[in-house]
Amino acid sequence: MGKRWGRLILVLLVGVWSWAQPGVKAASPSTDKEAIRAAIDEQVTAWNHGDIPAFMASYEDSPETTFVGTASVNKGFAPILERYKKSYANKDQMGTLTFSDLDIRLLPSSSSAPEYALVTGRFHLDRTTKGTATKDDGIFSLVWHKKAGKWKIVLDHTS
Amino acid sequence: MGKRWGRLILVLLVGVWSWAQPGVKAASPSTDKEAIRAAIDEQVTAWNHGDIPAFMASYEDSPETTFVGTASVNKGFAPILERYKKSYANKDQMGTLTFSDLDIRLLPSSSSAPEYALVTGRFHLDRTTKGTATKDDGIFSLVWHKKAGKWKIVLDHTS
Repeated sequence: MGKRWGRLILVLLVGVWSWAQPGVKAASPSTDKEAIRAAIDEQVTAWNHGDIPAFMASYEDSPETTFVGTASVNKGFAPILERYKKSYANKDQMGTLTFSDLDIRLLPSSSSAPEYALVTGRFHLDRTTKGTATKDDGIFSLVWHKKAGKWKIVLDHTS
Repeated sequence: MGKRWGRLILVLLVGVWSWAQPGVKAASPSTDKEAIRAAIDEQVTAWNHGDIPAFMASYEDSPETTFVGTASVNKGFAPILERYKKSYANKDQMGTLTFSDLDIRLLPSSSSAPEYALVTGRFHLDRTTKGTATKDDGIFSLVWHKKAGKWKIVLDHTS
């Protein structure tokens, strides 16, 4: 076997070895951050299509999921969904949502992979009409939980 | 060996066995909740003694520790401490702090013991003079992290 064949086999072996490392990419912080960033981008798209249920898909479907607003603490996925629907009764009241100053922080975990993350940022609504939700600008903090490979919001404090 | 000696040995064995169960008590949810509740009570006592550094002892001493106020996101234990000292320049401006509607929720963990907890509640300041911090009433959400057996705040959003 010549030198060239030896080199080719070595290159192939390294390639197969790299490809066979399971979870190395999925567990890296940058990829978890990318997953959360993608979920946030999907929320913005859903909001701007006037689709509150799709926007809520990033929240954990649990009676423990919590939304802290300017005046009250609201608990439970279903009550939070109803609250959004009442506060933003139609697409015009929802307007166009943009997020800024996003900071995504993976929290340390004693297990190998991160399970919780914090996100802070600002929101802005560009709209011509308002319902019961009168704020067009505000600040928020989110607690995300990774469960069955999916990142979901367990706490949203928007003020 | 008489019956009495047998009973004594049994009692001693049960005692030693109970004492030797490491972490069983510390890992139970009610005790973690009690530890967080105790840390919150210590914060209130410190605040009402006009002692901001002691109040801040419940925050994780890390550049990542985050305080979200009504207008801005502030990062880092030292800057948050400075911000508190500026916003509440003396004991009169600090007033008397009370918390209400406290809800402590231990977050699930893939390891055996909880590592994160969420606390929501309301604060009230009873005082006769104000500095730059003008709110006497508000709502807050806290993210707590258990590290080396101690629960510390990693995110405080007060609005």
